[in-house]
Amino acid sequence: MADVTKGRVVEQDVLTAYRDRVERGLVQALDGNAPLRSLLRYHIGLEDEGGRPASTPAKFLRPSIVLFVAEELGGDADVALPSAVAIELMHGFSLIHDDIQDQDRVRRGRPALWTICGIEQAINAGDLMHALAIETALRSSPDAAMCLLRAAREMIEGQSLDLAFERQDVTADGYLTMIDRKTGALLRCAFELGGVAAGVDSRVRSSLVALGNAVGRAFQIKDDVLGIWGSDDVLGKATGSDIRRRKKTLPVVLLFAATAGDDAAALRTLYRRSSPEGETAAAELAAIVARLDALHIRDACEAMIDRYLDLALRRARELPFDAAARTRMERLIGYLARRER
Amino acid sequence: MADVTKGRVVEQDVLTAYRDRVERGLVQALDGNAPLRSLLRYHIGLEDEGGRPASTPAKFLRPSIVLFVAEELGGDADVALPSAVAIELMHGFSLIHDDIQDQDRVRRGRPALWTICGIEQAINAGDLMHALAIETALRSSPDAAMCLLRAAREMIEGQSLDLAFERQDVTADGYLTMIDRKTGALLRCAFELGGVAAGVDSRVRSSLVALGNAVGRAFQIKDDVLGIWGSDDVLGKATGSDIRRRKKTLPVVLLFAATAGDDAAALRTLYRRSSPEGETAAAELAAIVARLDALHIRDACEAMIDRYLDLALRRARELPFDAAARTRMERLIGYLARRER
Repeated sequence: MADVTKGRVVEQDVLTAYRDRVERGLVQALDGNAPLRSLLRYHIGLEDEGGRPASTPAKFLRPSIVLFVAEELGGDADVALPSAVAIELMHGFSLIHDDIQDQDRVRRGRPALWTICGIEQAINAGDLMHALAIETALRSSPDAAMCLLRAAREMIEGQSLDLAFERQDVTADGYLTMIDRKTGALLRCAFELGGVAAGVDSRVRSSLVALGNAVGRAFQIKDDVLGIWGSDDVLGKATGSDIRRRKKTLPVVLLFAATAGDDAAALRTLYRRSSPEGETAAAELAAIVARLDALHIRDACEAMIDRYLDLALRRARELPFDAAARTRMERLIGYLARRER
Repeated sequence: MADVTKGRVVEQDVLTAYRDRVERGLVQALDGNAPLRSLLRYHIGLEDEGGRPASTPAKFLRPSIVLFVAEELGGDADVALPSAVAIELMHGFSLIHDDIQDQDRVRRGRPALWTICGIEQAINAGDLMHALAIETALRSSPDAAMCLLRAAREMIEGQSLDLAFERQDVTADGYLTMIDRKTGALLRCAFELGGVAAGVDSRVRSSLVALGNAVGRAFQIKDDVLGIWGSDDVLGKATGSDIRRRKKTLPVVLLFAATAGDDAAALRTLYRRSSPEGETAAAELAAIVARLDALHIRDACEAMIDRYLDLALRRARELPFDAAARTRMERLIGYLARRER
């Protein structure tokens, strides 16, 4: 409970400090009359289904990191703003295509874009948001654009691995390789873009990347935990959906690793029971969660989160921050690793 | 027949002159062991389905234009090469996603990428090629990257219009708006990137863009004509497929414009007969082609091609070319507007 409270305080601190600026930047980047533009504004949460202004449920994690790091390292937030907006657009693009690929019908408590405009136009909408993301980053600097492009490449390769993993056995190392790309790339990039906007030297830049990598791991493992043990209402999407789609999340990877012999064969059968297009029945889902609980796998995951959280905090101490900035950074890192949604 | 011969000569001239350099640049840009990289090499034609080196059936139109224009305007082809490779990657990305959206199973006489790896991974492959395209352009210059990004945005908006047009009435003006984006954007960009690599002034750059726009219109109208009256074997895809998918190509737009009253209602019924997922029957396809022929619509399209070809040739005369370069440019423009595949 203490962690949750801490998380909420941070959410009203770093994340709310930059919220208005990010939102204004997004409004500007997504302005335009073409029907595709309206779809993008809906997806990012600036408009509702009828095209009326809405208050977005997006958390703006990544752009807030960019602006926070840039400002605390002495950069000009106005120079950093295009990078911040760009990384949220890049994240938004990936969610549009991910939802199509995973057939997820709900995103942030609202209908996923493809359920509204069809898969064909949702592919276009994602493509447009991808191009707009890089165009916006290029307004910060060529260095920022190159940094975001590298992250995009890694993120797409990670998404490709994540999909391939649905059909194969995965080790813990394989899992980390995947999340370092799918989730870590853009989080590393958020910290790095803040440094780029502040014009830091290569030593500080390396620390930011290492910090982002550790935070990315903690963040994704927390996401995996919430996906199984979180609450539907708080998450805005159905828990258990990762298991239903046979995603190789860390709890599942650890469960397979801890299961041998006949039990392993039975587990594999249980996990594969329904067709790839079908949904695992509620009873089978409950049976899998019971096995996870019997093996205390949630605790093992939380221990890994703590380990990467520690690593991130150590990297944060390498940054040329004053005491107040260090405290805000530590609370931000704590929030990313321990949030409840 | 004279035109065809002329086209073939050009194909062995401008298009073959840069072929090896473009291919080497693509090999380098798409190098890597990740499974997604191999899919990209297959799509662009550098490898066959088994991952063995292949001789690509791609024509490399756009990169050849970049290198030709850059060289003839005194630019360094080595500086222009990343831009040339980038525009072929951008074109390749658009084809991967277009084939998914249009459910086209054949591309350049080979199975379309999504039929080999599934729609989910083909979306990723397209996304990766998109990011690689801009990253490669950024190696030429930020100006080149921005130019390609603007073209990408327009191209994606054009693809979105093309899909929307399948379900609505379209005027000739609406058609031109769509093709200026879907096809014109990248062709304009090819001429412009050549100029950017040669460091031309804004006057020459404007001429290149205007030339590219006129060529783009002639090129797409020719494409529409070939899609109905071309030969399957020469094209590497099925003629009539545009009609089967209810695409609003220029012949169809002109047919609707020339049909009034009861005839229009009958035509609309004929054109909509099968479900959006189904295929128009052969008899219905033949009935539509018969109506097109009765109204001499192919001639009307060819007249428009000639008009835009003339416009392009006039724009080409504004360029600071020597006599030999002008001749090569005129033959290239003639090929783009009058090719048979």
